[in-house]
Amino acid sequence: MAESAGVSCPLPSEQDNVEQAKGNPALDSSTFTPPVPLASPSITIEFCDRCRWLHRATWVSTELFLTFPPPALKAITIIPLNSEETGGRFRVWLNLEDSPPQLMWDRKIEGGFPELKGLKQRIRDHVQPGKSLGHSDKKSE
Amino acid sequence: MAESAGVSCPLPSEQDNVEQAKGNPALDSSTFTPPVPLASPSITIEFCDRCRWLHRATWVSTELFLTFPPPALKAITIIPLNSEETGGRFRVWLNLEDSPPQLMWDRKIEGGFPELKGLKQRIRDHVQPGKSLGHSDKKSE
Amino acid sequence: MAESAGVSCPLPSEQDNVEQAKGNPALDSSTFTPPVPLASPSITIEFCDRCRWLHRATWVSTELFLTFPPPALKAITIIPLNSEETGGRFRVWLNLEDSPPQLMWDRKIEGGFPELKGLKQRIRDHVQPGKSLGHSDKKSE
Amino acid sequence: MAESAGVSCPLPSEQDNVEQAKGNPALDSSTFTPPVPLASPSITIEFCDRCRWLHRATWVSTELFLTFPPPALKAITIIPLNSEETGGRFRVWLNLEDSPPQLMWDRKIEGGFPELKGLKQRIRDHVQPGKSLGHSDKKSE
Repeated sequence: MAESAGVSCPLPSEQDNVEQAKGNPALDSSTFTPPVPLASPSITIEFCDRCRWLHRATWVSTELFLTFPPPALKAITIIPLNSEETGGRFRVWLNLEDSPPQLMWDRKIEGGFPELKGLKQRIRDHVQPGKSLGHSDKKSE
Repeated sequence: MAESAGVSCPLPSEQDNVEQAKGNPALDSSTFTPPVPLASPSITIEFCDRCRWLHRATWVSTELFLTFPPPALKAITIIPLNSEETGGRFRVWLNLEDSPPQLMWDRKIEGGFPELKGLKQRIRDHVQPGKSLGHSDKKSE
Repeated sequence: MAESAGVSCPLPSEQDNVEQAKGNPALDSSTFTPPVPLASPSITIEFCDRCRWLHRATWVSTELFLTFPPPALKAITIIPLNSEETGGRFRVWLNLEDSPPQLMWDRKIEGGFPELKGLKQRIRDHVQPGKSLGHSDKKSE
Repeated sequence: MAESAGVSCPLPSEQDNVEQAKGNPALDSSTFTPPVPLASPSITIEFCDRCRWLHRATWVSTELFLTFPPPALKAITIIPLNSEETGGRFRVWLNLEDSPPQLMWDRKIEGGFPELKGLKQRIRDHVQPGKSLGHSDKKSE
């Protein structure tokens, strides 16, 4: 999973002259399409920034991407919050097409942070119901 | 910036009885509002997952949040891509209200990855034009 | 905590000519002193690489550095293990001068991974006994 | 590379009764051997903490471990520095048995931070001379 030198993914300067020519759409930003606002399936993590949970949220994001590589998960959005009424929040949402976002974890309801195994099981049950996460894994009933 | 024990952000179980009573909206997920799909200002990072740039993208995300804490940046979305036509992509978009996403960095156009200083300057010029990033910083003209 | 542009930490090329002159010890690697092998206080994290706990170990390392900036902690070493007999290991050691390394956490003894708060309290009790980690913090008796 | 549920790496509580019995060395910390101070091969990263390069150092560490999994690299140590005379420092050392630590990168000598590809090539030439890092890779002469 380390950075590769990019066999199939060269920079234009490393490619042949044709691609470097003017009019190369790879180098013309007016041809670029911005990503869609809310890909499906995707995850949104909200957290209380006053509690300094950025690195925890980022770590959870890393682990989810490694367990559910695209297209199982197409995007993860991290949202730091710093108002009074969002104090102590740590919520994980799953966004699926044709339905409103579904809550996968709320720190106040659950009484703490997600252990990764449990969070992954909940997400797996929605996005890859057949996938095994390991020997101690169980599907939700 | 380490995790705090959360002075202002207790778990309900650590709070008074009133809050723990039934009907506490903090514990009733039907009262929760999902986050908006595309907050403004926010950042979207697209990258080629075949090139294994997840950790680079995550690191850039961490640095941008630390330089532009909310509400300067309200969200960062990371999008791994693994098709042939997105090979070698590393793009950073800035999402601002009332305008289409603006391209802050494209690896092919720029000929490489962003040095953090330059990327932060471009974003700063849009979201916090008056903010200094340090002594060797210069605003774009 | 974001990267700074480095007011007090310029590159030699950004400094005056005297420093750039030949014989500048900042640019002569034969004058560099390698770091000491085992600084004190420092932390060592051993983990089972077969269990893929690199990112968990790295996250713990980040949080410990942010809670105990130098000189409270002078170094953190991460050691991935992949033999049969180290399967499932996640151990955190504290290295203090004039005593053998002290075990702060062992996943098998404790029955799971450290919650950050508890791990920080144990380390704090050794390296900064007077330091408060927040309102729900308690010193070990 | 995501966390696994640990097929071969169970907690003692998930194992058979014999192992859980008293006298189980897996649960008796007096039988634990602390890690050696300076494994070989290993990496040490020193950086200026005033410049806030913790997350950059951590990211480099992550990438090196993923490119050179154990036993190619057995340990990485991160050392934050905050004195006047270490201002602006970003150094990467390689520790090999039977020789003093060798400097792989110094920000002042090189005039900037390591691009990962170049740093990996230098380390590779010492620890895994035959290993290919990709198509645009070249061994040092």
